[in-house]
Amino acid sequence: MPEIAAGADLAALVAGAVELSDGDVVVVAHKAVSKAEGRVRRLADVDPGPRARALGRRFDKDPRHVQVVLDEAAEVLRAERGVIITVTAHGFVCANAGVDASNAPEEDTVVLLPVDPDASARGMRAGLRERTGARLAVLITDSFGRAWRHGQTDVAIGAAGLAPLEDWRGRPDSVGREMRATWIALADEIAGAADLARGKDTREPVVVVRGLERHVSDDDGPGAAALVRERELDLFR
Amino acid sequence: MPEIAAGADLAALVAGAVELSDGDVVVVAHKAVSKAEGRVRRLADVDPGPRARALGRRFDKDPRHVQVVLDEAAEVLRAERGVIITVTAHGFVCANAGVDASNAPEEDTVVLLPVDPDASARGMRAGLRERTGARLAVLITDSFGRAWRHGQTDVAIGAAGLAPLEDWRGRPDSVGREMRATWIALADEIAGAADLARGKDTREPVVVVRGLERHVSDDDGPGAAALVRERELDLFR
Repeated sequence: MPEIAAGADLAALVAGAVELSDGDVVVVAHKAVSKAEGRVRRLADVDPGPRARALGRRFDKDPRHVQVVLDEAAEVLRAERGVIITVTAHGFVCANAGVDASNAPEEDTVVLLPVDPDASARGMRAGLRERTGARLAVLITDSFGRAWRHGQTDVAIGAAGLAPLEDWRGRPDSVGREMRATWIALADEIAGAADLARGKDTREPVVVVRGLERHVSDDDGPGAAALVRERELDLFR
Repeated sequence: MPEIAAGADLAALVAGAVELSDGDVVVVAHKAVSKAEGRVRRLADVDPGPRARALGRRFDKDPRHVQVVLDEAAEVLRAERGVIITVTAHGFVCANAGVDASNAPEEDTVVLLPVDPDASARGMRAGLRERTGARLAVLITDSFGRAWRHGQTDVAIGAAGLAPLEDWRGRPDSVGREMRATWIALADEIAGAADLARGKDTREPVVVVRGLERHVSDDDGPGAAALVRERELDLFR
């Protein structure tokens, strides 16, 4: 894939780069989507406020970068040990409100999350359908850290054409007993699987996952918003 | 695979069921390992104490099952909304200390986590190596819920022959800038990928993941213990 510029037609780029078929799950790293949507900020245009300057000093971070994080955060959950854990406007809990300088288009720019990643996924799905005729699903992903475990895994922040959760609750197990708590975050497992197929230093924003056609739906479905645990149901905030 | 009985030689069963080659990652659902290791308890043998009886009443759960959860928990982090979130002896944070009745070998039995899943993975790796000659990796997995997001994903609770975390911190990104926080929980992404290949109501405890030979090592490596975030570094307990 070429470097993605603001206004780029991602669906056209993907359709031109890979042959797509019914049942494919097209997994797109959010940075490609954000760049195409112009969700990039130049640090030269950012005037950091007192909180950003204080956090920047404490964490040895560029205060302008911290200001962008605060701008993108609906809430700061923790600011300790050099990390700022936030709730984004979408409800995602992640470090730095998803604001990231790596793989940014230019020096001194940072990439934000898409404004509405589920809408981005739906738009891209429609664009791919139009160009290829294929009945497929689109996931938009980012790498999120986790409570309790080291490291990041890719998760879905946008989805269209695939139910992000597969509900086995109440269904019988292999010996006919009811499974009480089996509710699989399918979209996140697919996001992580796709991440295994690419390097972090290569320009491979798109991975096509095959063999999951049983999960691809006619409608767009509820999107990755369905993966967000409501604040009042969350025991760990 | 047949139903796994206590004392079963899992390596022999797997080696007989699938042809293995260098670079394969053999992903085993922990229940198969636990059953082979006799990590099963009969509820008829359990005498619930006052705390288990109280929690059982509150959550409409069998108090004997709750007692087994408390026996397996090093610490109870939360007991709310019908879930008991625990820290296990291994340091894993998960619901019910990993104790589960679904897919248990018999009515009124529950399956526990292996005592030392990394040791189980090392033993199985050695057994598979001996039988097949293949240089491969073994992961042992369970389905864990997460903070902040709905649903469970499969994660690695035991590992041998594969570094569970891939460290890109300090390495350059696609445009040569240093990546500050990229530390990928590879073993968890592989565990989730493997889960996509099986149903929850079928007896498919083993999935072989191919194409990851670059991650398979000569030595057993640090095991899934390396994925556990130390309590004092964890902002969300």
